[in-house]
This record gives sequence, C-alpha cells and structure tokens, in this order.
Amino acid sequence: MLTYRPIMKSNKTPLTFNEICDLISEDLQKVEDLFCGCFQSDAPLIPTITHYLNGAGGKKYRPMLLLLSSKISGYSNGDRHILNSCIVELIHAATLLHDDVVDEAFIRRGNPSVNRKWGNEASVLVGDFLFSKSFSLLASEDDSKIIKSISSASKKLAEGEVMGLATKGNFDIFEDEYIDIIYRKTASLISVSCKIGAILGNALPEKEKALTDFGLKVGIAFQLVDDVLDYIANPKKFGKTLGLDFHRKKMTLPLINLFQKASPQDKKKIQELLLSNNNLPGGLNTLVGMMKYYNSIEYVLEKARNYIEEAKKEIVIFDESPYLCAISSLADYVITRER
Amino acid sequence: MLTYRPIMKSNKTPLTFNEICDLISEDLQKVEDLFCGCFQSDAPLIPTITHYLNGAGGKKYRPMLLLLSSKISGYSNGDRHILNSCIVELIHAATLLHDDVVDEAFIRRGNPSVNRKWGNEASVLVGDFLFSKSFSLLASEDDSKIIKSISSASKKLAEGEVMGLATKGNFDIFEDEYIDIIYRKTASLISVSCKIGAILGNALPEKEKALTDFGLKVGIAFQLVDDVLDYIANPKKFGKTLGLDFHRKKMTLPLINLFQKASPQDKKKIQELLLSNNNLPGGLNTLVGMMKYYNSIEYVLEKARNYIEEAKKEIVIFDESPYLCAISSLADYVITRER
Repeated sequence: MLTYRPIMKSNKTPLTFNEICDLISEDLQKVEDLFCGCFQSDAPLIPTITHYLNGAGGKKYRPMLLLLSSKISGYSNGDRHILNSCIVELIHAATLLHDDVVDEAFIRRGNPSVNRKWGNEASVLVGDFLFSKSFSLLASEDDSKIIKSISSASKKLAEGEVMGLATKGNFDIFEDEYIDIIYRKTASLISVSCKIGAILGNALPEKEKALTDFGLKVGIAFQLVDDVLDYIANPKKFGKTLGLDFHRKKMTLPLINLFQKASPQDKKKIQELLLSNNNLPGGLNTLVGMMKYYNSIEYVLEKARNYIEEAKKEIVIFDESPYLCAISSLADYVITRER
Repeated sequence: MLTYRPIMKSNKTPLTFNEICDLISEDLQKVEDLFCGCFQSDAPLIPTITHYLNGAGGKKYRPMLLLLSSKISGYSNGDRHILNSCIVELIHAATLLHDDVVDEAFIRRGNPSVNRKWGNEASVLVGDFLFSKSFSLLASEDDSKIIKSISSASKKLAEGEVMGLATKGNFDIFEDEYIDIIYRKTASLISVSCKIGAILGNALPEKEKALTDFGLKVGIAFQLVDDVLDYIANPKKFGKTLGLDFHRKKMTLPLINLFQKASPQDKKKIQELLLSNNNLPGGLNTLVGMMKYYNSIEYVLEKARNYIEEAKKEIVIFDESPYLCAISSLADYVITRER
C-alpha cells in the first residue's frame, strides 16, 4: 500500500482527511446540524437510535463529495448543497441500519450495532423512517432533475443490495457481474452526490458528466477497498466485525479472484471453508493466507487504485482551486484510509 | 355486526365490493399493469418475490380510494390517477414486507409470508426496492404538492410504526395515544390517497379537506377492525396468522379497552397471559373470552362504525354520482368485510 503515490494536478501535495474537513468545516457543521435536526420525532426511539448511530462517528464521505463538487462547479449562492448533503447522508444511514439486519452485524463503527442493541424490528423501522425523511426533505427541492437523480440512485442502490443477496455462496459469479453489483449498491449514491454538486453549480453538461463518472469510479474503488478491509483490516481501527463477508458467505472480489486463480484442489478447499455450516475454525486466516499466496488482495487493491486514478482524470477539466485539490485528495483517501 | 345499517346519501343501496370494482375496472386494470411493470429488475429475486406477494391478492384498497376520489373531484383528463395509485400501493406493499419481518409473521394473504419463504434479508431489501421505486415514480409527478403530500404521509407512516414498537407489552398506554399511533401508521397513507384524488381533480380547498378527513377516519376505522379481526376472525378467510398481536405482545384497542375495564384480579391475569414467555397455551381463547365478557370487541367495532359514519358525513358536499355512491360503499366495506 505504501507504494501508492497519488498523482495530483500540477503536482500539488494531497490534503489529509482533516485538512479537507477544515476547508469545508463551516458547511460540514451545517450539514451535521440539519442531519441531527432530522432525528426529531414524536417517537422517542427515533432520536435515541439515530443519535446513537451518528454519535459513533460517520465520516460524512458523501456530503463531503457533494459539498466539494458544488464548490468546484461554482455554486456559492444558497444552502441547497447543505440540504442535498443531508438527504444523501440520510439515505446512507438508512441503508446502514438495514444492512446490519441483513448481515446480522454485531458491531458498527466500533460499537454494538443498532440491531444488536434494539433488535431487528427497530433497525428496520428506524431505517424506514430515515429513508422517508430523506424523501420528505427531497420534496422541498424545486429542481425536478435533482429529485429524479436521487430517487433513481436510491432505486439502483436497493437493486444492487438485492442482487448482492443472490450471490451468497455462489462461486459462479464473475468479476464483471460483481463490479455491476457494487456499481449499483455503493457507487450509485456516491456518484449522485457528485452529480448534484454539478447540477447545483449549473455546470456545463460535460462537467456534470465528468463529476458523475468521477463519483462512479470513486464509489467502485470505495467498495473494493471495503471488501479487502473485511479480510485484512486492523480490527482496532476497522470499526466493523472482521470477516463478516466470509461468515455471511458473501462473494466479494478478493474471494472471486482467489477462486478463479486457485488450483482445483484449492478451489475445493475454499468451497469447504466458505460453505461449512459455521465456517471452519481458523477458516478466515486460512483464506487470507491463500489470498496472499494467489495475490488476490493485491489484485483488488491495484484495481481500486486504477479506478481512483481514472476518477481523477475525469475532473481535470475543472479549474485549479483548493476545492479541486481537496476533492482529488478525498478520492485518494479511499485508498490510503487506515487499515 | 349485522345490526350495522349503512346510511347512504338519498338512501341509495350501497354497492358490494365487486360492484365497486366493476365500476372502475378499466382504471384498476391499468393500475395493476403499471404496478406489475414496477417489479421488473435486473435482480431476478425482485420480480419473483413481488409477483408472489401480489399474486396472493391484495385488495388494492388505497388505489380504489384514490381513483374514486379523483372521479368525484372531476378528474377525467389524463392518467395521473393511475400513476399515483401505483405509487401508494408500492409504499403499502413495502410496509407489508417490512411488517412481516417486524412481526415475524408466517402467513400473509393466506400464503407463507415472504420472510418465511425467502428470509428476513430478502423481505427487508425487496421492501426497500419497492419503497425506492415508489419515490422514483413520484419524481415523475410534476405537482410538487403531490410529491410533498405523499412523502410526508410516508414519513408519518414510518413514525407510527416505530411508535407502535414501543407499545409492546406496555399496559400504560391509553386509547387516545393508541388512536394517534394508528392515525399515523395506517390512516396517513389512506388519507393521502383520497387527498391526491382531490388535488388531481383541482377540487376546492374545502372539498380537498373533506376527502383528506374522510380518508383519515376511514383509515382509523380500518385499523380498528383489523385489530378486532386479529382476535376473532375466521382463520380460513382472514389470510393472516390469527392472534399475532397477542403473540407479539402488541397493545391494540381491544386489549387496551379490556385492561382498562378489567377488575384488579382480571388485570393481573391479562398481564400474565400476555407477558408469559411463549404466551400460555389457550391464552388467546381466554383473552377473547374476557374481551367478550367486558364487551371490548363490541366497543372497538362500535368505535369503528362511528368513524365510518363520521367519514361519510365529510363527503356529502360532493355531487351525487355512481362514484360518490361507490366511495361511500367502500367506506362501509371496512366494517362489513368478511371475518
């Protein structure tokens, strides 16, 4: 990983995550305030659970992309970038709650997951509330193009989640099918965040397309790195249960790539490891060992790096500015974030 | 129940459910076609599950109310009543899938529930898809008032569901709190269905309000009758697991009313019956016996009848027409439907 050297336009030093946050701290605080205001409800369980989830510290990656996209597109007159950032973060938070039910996750952002603490019912219903809340905020947006873009991304996201479900324990899945799933499941919301920034700034069509494609590529890389982290992250820093994909028999690219390269004998072993009822003890370590042997971890990381490089090429058409440097650095952060 | 004599404007004979369906059969078929078209997806699990759910035969009660509301409001030029009917039915279908996860239901519409057949994960995620799909359809609606009304109803619905969760096994809940919960959980979507009909027909504000309030009252009555049916329905006709509220320790009005009226000794017995770990064997029958003794079933049904009568008074300001007769009869159907 240390061999990765982010290429910046005009060789500028990339910003750290904290430096990016500082650059847009005022807007980020407004997003946070609006976001927390959304948790108010006559149902006391809603603020309790959502504050718990938010208190555990989401990075607000999607809002940051949206804010920066709007800045590089010249949007400066109004607060619609705050509103729309809040909308995409609400959708993201809703999917986290539902994902935890689907994955039977125990830990999220380093704390017991909501479903672990309050049960599946609360996770499902509070997730639905956040989802509905995002759409009731979206209804106050006058631009029908934004309404259509976000609702369409949200539909794609749900489709991707269902498609992901069908891949469990399915060794017949190929890399391109998998990329198509994560393009929907993860990249659609990240991409639309960047696109909305362009729409708000009345960017030219080619710039809107550039930001949309930038977001898509960043989103795919984001999920690929997540897939790797599920196998090899530092548990103390990861904030999620390690090996969850393995235990849930989820086919992600490190495993798909490993299975494709493995010898017939190793293929059999991999299937046994994954499909045995409670996964074999030590199975995760054995699998990670094989992934390293067959170079599958490095293969996926290299792919993610390429997506980020391609993403950054998309936005060279924007004028130089601290915000452009920041959004480019935010793309790099997908690869360099702690593991 | 047989003592209930629906009062019709100018003493017309109320229509049967099938006669109402016949009156708007062409529109209902268009709603059905659009609805089924929504199930198409690259994720094969989505059409499989949604066709299964739809094939089990929903009554399309909300679309029927929306279509008839639009007719009595004079809407005749276009297909937006079809689109909006489909949107509310998608939201309803999504909540059915999520409710089944929350309730751990085994049977829905007389068949094994989706979560029973495909697991909680599929119910959650396909529900999310239907929900997203409804909003992506809604995004094609030009009238921002409709977008705001539906998204706001959907948020209220989710809030009501969460509030309902908190009442489990809680004997401190009073009737007015419970009515507030079902006003959100059930009546908000039924009410907005009627309101949209008025908006489409450009009805005068007092007529829009009349239809909105009509829907609210019909919606509350609808849930009250559902609550009764959970205790005393004919299992062959009910299409849901009987006694589910009892087994899930859900406080509904028959039980709230019973507990309020019961002697201290009976109060203790009721708490034991409901709160014992797996509910006591024969507990449901004992409870129903007590409800009959304390007249709680009849109390709730009488309340539902009153809501329906009050609902029908709201719409007397509309001109006489077969559609007015039909929507009034559809209100009566809440009380007279088979049990």
